Amino acid sequence: MERSLIQSIAATLPAAGPRVVRGIGDDAAVVRSGGKLCVTSVDAIVEGVHFRLEDGSAGPFAGSPFDVGWRALAGALSDLAAMGAKPGEAYIALGVSREAGEAQALELMRGAAELAAVTGTVLAGGDVVEAPVLTASVTVVGWAQDERELIGRDGARVGDLVGVTGRLGGRPRRPRPRLEEGRALARAGAHALIDISDGLATDARHIGESSGVCLEIELEKLPLGEGVESRELAATAGEDYELCVCLAPDDVERAQGQVQMTGVELTWIGRVRQGAPGASFLDARGDECSLEGFEHRW
Amino acid sequence: MERSLIQSIAATLPAAGPRVVRGIGDDAAVVRSGGKLCVTSVDAIVEGVHFRLEDGSAGPFAGSPFDVGWRALAGALSDLAAMGAKPGEAYIALGVSREAGEAQALELMRGAAELAAVTGTVLAGGDVVEAPVLTASVTVVGWAQDERELIGRDGARVGDLVGVTGRLGGRPRRPRPRLEEGRALARAGAHALIDISDGLATDARHIGESSGVCLEIELEKLPLGEGVESRELAATAGEDYELCVCLAPDDVERAQGQVQMTGVELTWIGRVRQGAPGASFLDARGDECSLEGFEHRW
Repeated sequence: MERSLIQSIAATLPAAGPRVVRGIGDDAAVVRSGGKLCVTSVDAIVEGVHFRLEDGSAGPFAGSPFDVGWRALAGALSDLAAMGAKPGEAYIALGVSREAGEAQALELMRGAAELAAVTGTVLAGGDVVEAPVLTASVTVVGWAQDERELIGRDGARVGDLVGVTGRLGGRPRRPRPRLEEGRALARAGAHALIDISDGLATDARHIGESSGVCLEIELEKLPLGEGVESRELAATAGEDYELCVCLAPDDVERAQGQVQMTGVELTWIGRVRQGAPGASFLDARGDECSLEGFEHRW
Repeated sequence: MERSLIQSIAATLPAAGPRVVRGIGDDAAVVRSGGKLCVTSVDAIVEGVHFRLEDGSAGPFAGSPFDVGWRALAGALSDLAAMGAKPGEAYIALGVSREAGEAQALELMRGAAELAAVTGTVLAGGDVVEAPVLTASVTVVGWAQDERELIGRDGARVGDLVGVTGRLGGRPRRPRPRLEEGRALARAGAHALIDISDGLATDARHIGESSGVCLEIELEKLPLGEGVESRELAATAGEDYELCVCLAPDDVERAQGQVQMTGVELTWIGRVRQGAPGASFLDARGDECSLEGFEHRW
């Protein structure tokens, strides 16, 4: 549903005007404000759709209300990371169900506040409403001095190397959005950057489609999280909040150095070539393989 | 629930730091960005809580999906109006139920886009997720050049006159946020400004409590909407999206002139006096009366 609806919505909206540098279709919107750029992203999570409160069930993210609040803010901040923006403020619209009540809602906010403190983000406002299930819609605002500091998903070029931060498939309970890593990759000359919270397979395809190129990724090279055995699952599971970057071979060393200073690994997993816009995945023998069956659908 | 939870949330958050000019507790948050001020408000509406889709039932706002989209954006823009800010961008997190489907979600976005066009607001981004009921969480960003342009709810002074824009109790299906009127009142020297979407009784009390004064309002002076007969209902019903202002008597004429240019009435309904912080309402005989029974609770 989501994809075609977003396209229909974008088609009904008028052109955005000169203040809007990037509108619908990237990780975040970018608006010019005085001498600065204001980078804004919205990420909503809904109980029963994106998460369940701690009950051990499989499927979507399961955690305590504190974890859910952390995860809600992490999702939005990860979009800023994927632009190379510096985080500023966050605003949370909280939908509180009768079942959740004030206590769980407050725990959710405490989780968000904890990640806000860790990342230097200020929780500056929001709204609290009644809702049938626990819901958090997070708007984050980041800032940049110059348009060249910000990296979209549409700039990948044939010949670029494809890299990924951290390890995949681990689905951490309290993911760290890769804000410093995003800015480091932007400084190192990244051509395209995206966060892979929907899974590497989906998000690499988004870079390819937006850039008009094909990202060819070798499954054997994926850095797997602890206890993760299936490379196909690591490529499709989502909830990782790592970044995928496309970068000219000449800039690889600089990027590697800058990202390593943050304590996070940067692994080269493929390369950008001509071809049908999107992404293709190669197995250990170098044959193209389909990840269709693995695409997670909650 | 809402009020005590917001207070608990505010109590758990760390101090906001020097960039945040106004944080939780006013109509909108104000953040310094370069040479400008960024004014942000979030307003969420939930099917079954704040609105029902056209079914003729009493209670919350009832309208078509188009009306709901208009109303969702109007609620957030009304908070900018109440600060005296100029609207800039809007971001909508849309929760789409299976019952609503893509068609109704798109109609909702069309309603929001229509009001965006009318008010010069750019819909610059958002998120679309599955949800148990139709939900729209709207973040609006407005801009101001200078802190003195922006009016909070905490500046009312003893001796001020209390005014209200437009007519009350009519609960329009497609309310017009009073953006021009808010800026006109700010220019005219307003001491305190609030939007009365929760009802005049509730919102006048908010000004009084934040300012440490008592707003004394004469029910007989309320400007009633067409077909509205109960002054008590007009003071409590909410969903009006008019503004309530406190202003020095010397500035009244200027305010009147500036607001009238927008084609909207400005009516003086009371005055600010010393007393228990809040608001009190006088009946036709000048006796204080309680509006308790009329406070709407959906």
